[in-house]
Amino acid sequence: MALVSVIHGPNLNLLGTREVSVYGRQTLPEIEAELVSSAIELGLELECYQSNHEGGIVDRVQSLRGRADVLILNAGGYTHSSVAIRDAVAAIAPEIPTLEVHLSIPEAREAFRQQSLLAGVVRGRIEGFGGLSYLLALHAASRLIADRGLLLRDK
Amino acid sequence: MALVSVIHGPNLNLLGTREVSVYGRQTLPEIEAELVSSAIELGLELECYQSNHEGGIVDRVQSLRGRADVLILNAGGYTHSSVAIRDAVAAIAPEIPTLEVHLSIPEAREAFRQQSLLAGVVRGRIEGFGGLSYLLALHAASRLIADRGLLLRDK
Amino acid sequence: MALVSVIHGPNLNLLGTREVSVYGRQTLPEIEAELVSSAIELGLELECYQSNHEGGIVDRVQSLRGRADVLILNAGGYTHSSVAIRDAVAAIAPEIPTLEVHLSIPEAREAFRQQSLLAGVVRGRIEGFGGLSYLLALHAASRLIADRGLLLRDK
Amino acid sequence: MALVSVIHGPNLNLLGTREVSVYGRQTLPEIEAELVSSAIELGLELECYQSNHEGGIVDRVQSLRGRADVLILNAGGYTHSSVAIRDAVAAIAPEIPTLEVHLSIPEAREAFRQQSLLAGVVRGRIEGFGGLSYLLALHAASRLIADRGLLLRDK
Amino acid sequence: MALVSVIHGPNLNLLGTREVSVYGRQTLPEIEAELVSSAIELGLELECYQSNHEGGIVDRVQSLRGRADVLILNAGGYTHSSVAIRDAVAAIAPEIPTLEVHLSIPEAREAFRQQSLLAGVVRGRIEGFGGLSYLLALHAASRLIADRGLLLRDK
Amino acid sequence: MALVSVIHGPNLNLLGTREVSVYGRQTLPEIEAELVSSAIELGLELECYQSNHEGGIVDRVQSLRGRADVLILNAGGYTHSSVAIRDAVAAIAPEIPTLEVHLSIPEAREAFRQQSLLAGVVRGRIEGFGGLSYLLALHAASRLIADRGLLLRDK
Amino acid sequence: MALVSVIHGPNLNLLGTREVSVYGRQTLPEIEAELVSSAIELGLELECYQSNHEGGIVDRVQSLRGRADVLILNAGGYTHSSVAIRDAVAAIAPEIPTLEVHLSIPEAREAFRQQSLLAGVVRGRIEGFGGLSYLLALHAASRLIADRGLLLRDK
Amino acid sequence: MALVSVIHGPNLNLLGTREVSVYGRQTLPEIEAELVSSAIELGLELECYQSNHEGGIVDRVQSLRGRADVLILNAGGYTHSSVAIRDAVAAIAPEIPTLEVHLSIPEAREAFRQQSLLAGVVRGRIEGFGGLSYLLALHAASRLIADRGLLLRDK
Amino acid sequence: MALVSVIHGPNLNLLGTREVSVYGRQTLPEIEAELVSSAIELGLELECYQSNHEGGIVDRVQSLRGRADVLILNAGGYTHSSVAIRDAVAAIAPEIPTLEVHLSIPEAREAFRQQSLLAGVVRGRIEGFGGLSYLLALHAASRLIADRGLLLRDK
Amino acid sequence: MALVSVIHGPNLNLLGTREVSVYGRQTLPEIEAELVSSAIELGLELECYQSNHEGGIVDRVQSLRGRADVLILNAGGYTHSSVAIRDAVAAIAPEIPTLEVHLSIPEAREAFRQQSLLAGVVRGRIEGFGGLSYLLALHAASRLIADRGLLLRDK
Amino acid sequence: MALVSVIHGPNLNLLGTREVSVYGRQTLPEIEAELVSSAIELGLELECYQSNHEGGIVDRVQSLRGRADVLILNAGGYTHSSVAIRDAVAAIAPEIPTLEVHLSIPEAREAFRQQSLLAGVVRGRIEGFGGLSYLLALHAASRLIADRGLLLRDK
Amino acid sequence: MALVSVIHGPNLNLLGTREVSVYGRQTLPEIEAELVSSAIELGLELECYQSNHEGGIVDRVQSLRGRADVLILNAGGYTHSSVAIRDAVAAIAPEIPTLEVHLSIPEAREAFRQQSLLAGVVRGRIEGFGGLSYLLALHAASRLIADRGLLLRDK
Repeated sequence: MALVSVIHGPNLNLLGTREVSVYGRQTLPEIEAELVSSAIELGLELECYQSNHEGGIVDRVQSLRGRADVLILNAGGYTHSSVAIRDAVAAIAPEIPTLEVHLSIPEAREAFRQQSLLAGVVRGRIEGFGGLSYLLALHAASRLIADRGLLLRDK
Repeated sequence: MALVSVIHGPNLNLLGTREVSVYGRQTLPEIEAELVSSAIELGLELECYQSNHEGGIVDRVQSLRGRADVLILNAGGYTHSSVAIRDAVAAIAPEIPTLEVHLSIPEAREAFRQQSLLAGVVRGRIEGFGGLSYLLALHAASRLIADRGLLLRDK
Repeated sequence: MALVSVIHGPNLNLLGTREVSVYGRQTLPEIEAELVSSAIELGLELECYQSNHEGGIVDRVQSLRGRADVLILNAGGYTHSSVAIRDAVAAIAPEIPTLEVHLSIPEAREAFRQQSLLAGVVRGRIEGFGGLSYLLALHAASRLIADRGLLLRDK
Repeated sequence: MALVSVIHGPNLNLLGTREVSVYGRQTLPEIEAELVSSAIELGLELECYQSNHEGGIVDRVQSLRGRADVLILNAGGYTHSSVAIRDAVAAIAPEIPTLEVHLSIPEAREAFRQQSLLAGVVRGRIEGFGGLSYLLALHAASRLIADRGLLLRDK
Repeated sequence: MALVSVIHGPNLNLLGTREVSVYGRQTLPEIEAELVSSAIELGLELECYQSNHEGGIVDRVQSLRGRADVLILNAGGYTHSSVAIRDAVAAIAPEIPTLEVHLSIPEAREAFRQQSLLAGVVRGRIEGFGGLSYLLALHAASRLIADRGLLLRDK
Repeated sequence: MALVSVIHGPNLNLLGTREVSVYGRQTLPEIEAELVSSAIELGLELECYQSNHEGGIVDRVQSLRGRADVLILNAGGYTHSSVAIRDAVAAIAPEIPTLEVHLSIPEAREAFRQQSLLAGVVRGRIEGFGGLSYLLALHAASRLIADRGLLLRDK
Repeated sequence: MALVSVIHGPNLNLLGTREVSVYGRQTLPEIEAELVSSAIELGLELECYQSNHEGGIVDRVQSLRGRADVLILNAGGYTHSSVAIRDAVAAIAPEIPTLEVHLSIPEAREAFRQQSLLAGVVRGRIEGFGGLSYLLALHAASRLIADRGLLLRDK
Repeated sequence: MALVSVIHGPNLNLLGTREVSVYGRQTLPEIEAELVSSAIELGLELECYQSNHEGGIVDRVQSLRGRADVLILNAGGYTHSSVAIRDAVAAIAPEIPTLEVHLSIPEAREAFRQQSLLAGVVRGRIEGFGGLSYLLALHAASRLIADRGLLLRDK
Repeated sequence: MALVSVIHGPNLNLLGTREVSVYGRQTLPEIEAELVSSAIELGLELECYQSNHEGGIVDRVQSLRGRADVLILNAGGYTHSSVAIRDAVAAIAPEIPTLEVHLSIPEAREAFRQQSLLAGVVRGRIEGFGGLSYLLALHAASRLIADRGLLLRDK
Repeated sequence: MALVSVIHGPNLNLLGTREVSVYGRQTLPEIEAELVSSAIELGLELECYQSNHEGGIVDRVQSLRGRADVLILNAGGYTHSSVAIRDAVAAIAPEIPTLEVHLSIPEAREAFRQQSLLAGVVRGRIEGFGGLSYLLALHAASRLIADRGLLLRDK
Repeated sequence: MALVSVIHGPNLNLLGTREVSVYGRQTLPEIEAELVSSAIELGLELECYQSNHEGGIVDRVQSLRGRADVLILNAGGYTHSSVAIRDAVAAIAPEIPTLEVHLSIPEAREAFRQQSLLAGVVRGRIEGFGGLSYLLALHAASRLIADRGLLLRDK
Repeated sequence: MALVSVIHGPNLNLLGTREVSVYGRQTLPEIEAELVSSAIELGLELECYQSNHEGGIVDRVQSLRGRADVLILNAGGYTHSSVAIRDAVAAIAPEIPTLEVHLSIPEAREAFRQQSLLAGVVRGRIEGFGGLSYLLALHAASRLIADRGLLLRDK
């Protein structure tokens, strides 16, 4: 069974209890529960990981090689400052496509959120749908896995 | 039955026959056929419109008021230069959420494609999945329509 | 009788029904009605035109040559992006002065509204007064027409 | 009777005798005479003040509280550099709307005149009409005063 | 017989009657007459098209596929703002080389004319020679057509 | 008793032994000793934490919820690059005000220290006083705690 | 007895009656009363001065030489535009350290408030605490005066 | 006898007693004494004025009309921020050439001293020679006065 | 017989043997041979010069005064950095028009090739046609020479 | 025996197995083996450390004090974003010179790799030679150690 | 006798015959003749050199060591682009002060003339006086030579 | 025997006698002597060339084709401004790798030294080691020559 790995970046563990006007009321466990039931429906294995540590996310991304089929990544604040995570994603890109996910639309917020260092190395981006962003990404992952040609297509 | 309106911007009528390394081999009719069958499955009414004219797109966006429930918009090259389309989308935003769609990831391309004038007024963005971007947007539309709370949530 | 031509750019047909906190509650027909009665008072002929199409506005501006005495132009979103409209205004400038009008103050809004491509080729600018901006422009037009010296003064 | 206060910034006392190609041949006394007779017609009280001193203008703006109904301000060169005047205008804004006036169109001149620090705190702007700019502003003031709703409308 | 298609952008229909110090006194019909007689000499078929509409130009560029051998394009003000026309030119580039033409030298004029969005997708550029710019482009077209290797050379 | 939590960012453990011309000769233990005795005087509980790890600081900031009353934060080099710490501070802001502290004045140093990502989410900033900066912050914390109105005032 | 001189820049005389959401409800006399009683407690002489005039503030700063021990300066809007005040502060810096004070956090507000021309020449900065900012500065002044080594330390 | 007017801007009254490494040890009275004796030698009348007030300098510049032949201006910190002084200098420029003088070379110092707002309206600039800068300017003034053609040459 | 002078800038002597994908396979002697035979056909005298030295090119441009009728200049890398060559071209511009030529389209290459210092002083520009660029320029030269009005037209 | 400490930043553990066109085929163990045998030849003690964690690298750099003689640092992606590592390197700089090493030439790659935060605090930089970059740095370290004067020379 | 060396940069050999509206009608020999007679009066030896070659100017500047007392340098277009000349001037700066001279005021002209690479390394600057700029510089040189303290003063 | 060619750019002939705090006390002949003895050890032929002339360096670089195996280039001030040298290095790059060398670290100095035009076309860069930079480059050259695979590897 294909494995979809989900990585949540810094502060996403606080979801649903903080800044609900920006990020909505769903908690991370609630989102993950929805992802799990969708994964079952789609016949996919799913694993989730959250860390506030840039280095921890780099380690995790590297560890997916030879193991995962698709990475769903919400790098949170590291999206805009981490060359290290970008390089890790680039390193796995020939085998494992990464889908960048955001709850809000960073481009519509502060100036320092305008640039995504990830945009140049990911396979697709979904943003602005709250928890639904993850579900759409899981859907996309399922389609990419089903059609290996798409999965391996060199961007 | 809820109506989802799809607007394709300039040059998208050429899809599948040009620059296939960037945009893939699917033609616009093929994408629309997939959208139609998905819409039927999801119990949604669907209408599609393509224009190379900025003013034509503004007219179309305005015409959706009182008629459509969600707009799926791939504004193509106008994404980066059209304040007029942005203003039209902003005008319908309180009633009709717009989902911005791109086949490729504009942020990963030329400098003049870095800025989306739409980002500040749309409800969500999906980019980089080729024709699949539209399908994911249709999925998102279906969810937003099903949950009126989500649909009307002021971003 | 002197002719004052008014051109309204994109989305101005929606006035009064949308984003009333920014643009006020007056509709375009209401503004035009006020303009008409003022024009009668001032002994001026008036014609109004609205279009969402950049090219349509260029056509209209060109068509004023040999016909109109003053142009009152609210180019809306095209103010910030249209070199073509600027060039058309520059082309008629030796004969027909253009008065740039805005309902709000664009410089006080988003960054992409900071630059007016028209500023370098118009005779005057009035902004921020809602529908009253047009009336003040009509007043100014009346004065320019009354004093041919002013009208033809090369800026 | 409502009071309209006019403040002329630096170098405007030289009007009509200097750089006539930019600012026209009208002197400041001539402009003020026109303003006075218009004010009488409109049933408004008028007071005028000119200063080359930034601090003097700040003092004057502050002094209008509880006294004036509208401020017509041509801050001249301070438009582009004075945060202090901006802050003074912002301080009176809830009670007294400010109308920014320019004889020429600063945006069409040198780079250092592109930015108006006032744009974000004034109620409207009129520029490019020479002495007529003031008259149009007086007209606008009269309308705002007549319609208290307009006058107090929070921008 | 090979077909050379000429597209004139916005305001070029006014040539010769406006801003003669910048654009010269030749009218568009006069330039086209010269082009026609040169085309006959060179054994080329020629067609000309002028539009003030960005979308109209995109439509026209698309329509050349399978029909024209070379496009001579003076996009006027759209040169600096139209991603849509750029994308259309890019779409036909593998089959039909585009020669960018300007009467004046845009880089020597206002700041907003410094950038050509077309530069990255055209085969060559000729600017500053007034109507002669077109004739030189026709000459270049003739040479490219004569030497298919040159014509198809991927830039 | 109210709890004030102090977080020292990267390299602050080296204080007093390195770059004394910039940071002074006080060591971190000496500063903390002064803070402790002041806290006792002010009737405040105090806890201190130092880390060179961005993620560690994010974890710590999150952990303060429901526990601390004020955060005194010297984020060191992360002040200028960490969106993640900013987001963590923003997350606790409705309950726990953060006081940003610096030993030197970063704005007076290298260009890459000009921007504080924290400035938009903290309650106050104290910089340039060496170890005294912390003491002043503790004083401020004491005042904010004493006056709940101040503490909760939404910036 | 050591003398601490306080200078309030433009519009600070309006404190407490205007823009209370930004600057709080304390009036300048109330703040000064608190400063006076604190100064008495700390055994310091205190003098206060407010001016809306840049030149007046420069005069005042210069006049402190040979007289004052510390300057507490809230330059208001001049913080961002006045090279003259900066140069005056630099001129007295070897003898009299300046403490920059702000009621709000300018870096968190409009773009034109991002740069402090004073940052490079002051001894410390305190911002964001409303009237409390002044009290903290007085505290800091007291400490600097008590410890001459600190006072004279060349930044 | 021709009159040369000298205006010293803010903080120049402190010369020789402050920041001697940048500005040298000569005091302003010493410089003026040298200027006076040179003026006598050159057969010129001389008047000197110093002010820390931007508005005062504008007033003074305006007062020279019909009275002075050349203005020697060291605007100090206002060189970089005062549009008002620039406009005053521009206003007298057709009759009275201004010579810009600096003791140091501002372009070689902080970024905010890179731009001279005066450069576009003065007749010449002399900088970096300490007090000698003024003497060289007096010399230049003498030459310009001797050769009316030079004096009136429109820059 | 009219003289057309051709100047080739740095590295153009390597043409045809290096970076053929950018510059094509024609050698400089081959291009010059084509130019010579075209010049004969057109009844023009031709001289060619190549140098890698900026100063050498300045010398050469200066030497054309009183001798040449048109200059065809491919300044190569100096196009983007040489104010000296620009000034030399400006010096001869009233008598000898310069035609700027490039083999490739510099604007479509690296950022440091975006700016042409020559654009403001040349009569026309031709770029992107390889060796054909020179031939088209020779053609243009011939036309300018034939029509003295065109030749001397002040741009 | 002198100790040379080597720190490899994020993703360098993947060397040789990923993006071989950029980084070459040598693995990190292979590079370290070469370094070890060279160190033996040069009579140097060597220790190596790799981490994906910014904080981990800061900790490691700090730990070298009193222990190592030279630091060879390839900070990978942190080169461009980490003020914290820069500050740590600056802290040890008086005792331990740092040699910055890169496998590729970052300045020749993406825009976000243009800036090295380390450049201002390191003793030397070697980049572009793949694994050989490390060996050259070891060589340089050996020379600096041999010549204490060089080692301690304050940059 | 002290030696003053004058270096004229590119295109200055054309003085008086070209662009007289910018540079005046004096020829270089005329200026040099004036300089010679002034030098005799001032008891100075004088030598002049003109070159269009950047490298030639660098050679000349280097050759002054041990020979000249002051350098008067008008680097023309190289002022804005030559790091090499700047470095040469910096190399001789401890012994030989350089006086930068311009006929016009470069800061008042095109954008690419805004920056002087020399400003950071010269002793003084004189600009805008035409040929008189040189004479004033000679005067300054004479004063610097007479007062060795001034001459050697480290800027 | 393989030939390594060394080119020293402008002002490097002054090494050791000027600005020793930046560039050290070694003279160029001393550096070259060290290079010669190292070359003998490494079995390499060596040739050295110094020029202050940009064009001379371009000539020299071109002359290496078919003759040299590696170029060691310290372009001095031309590193930051010379497109011509860059293009020459690019022209020989397929056969002869260039190693960029600097005595100091330009990125750590003035803003105009931040950009290396060479970075995009060289094989490697070594900077900051004084004369040792050249020796390390010679070492690198030796390794590249020994391993032809490395030498020819297309960057």
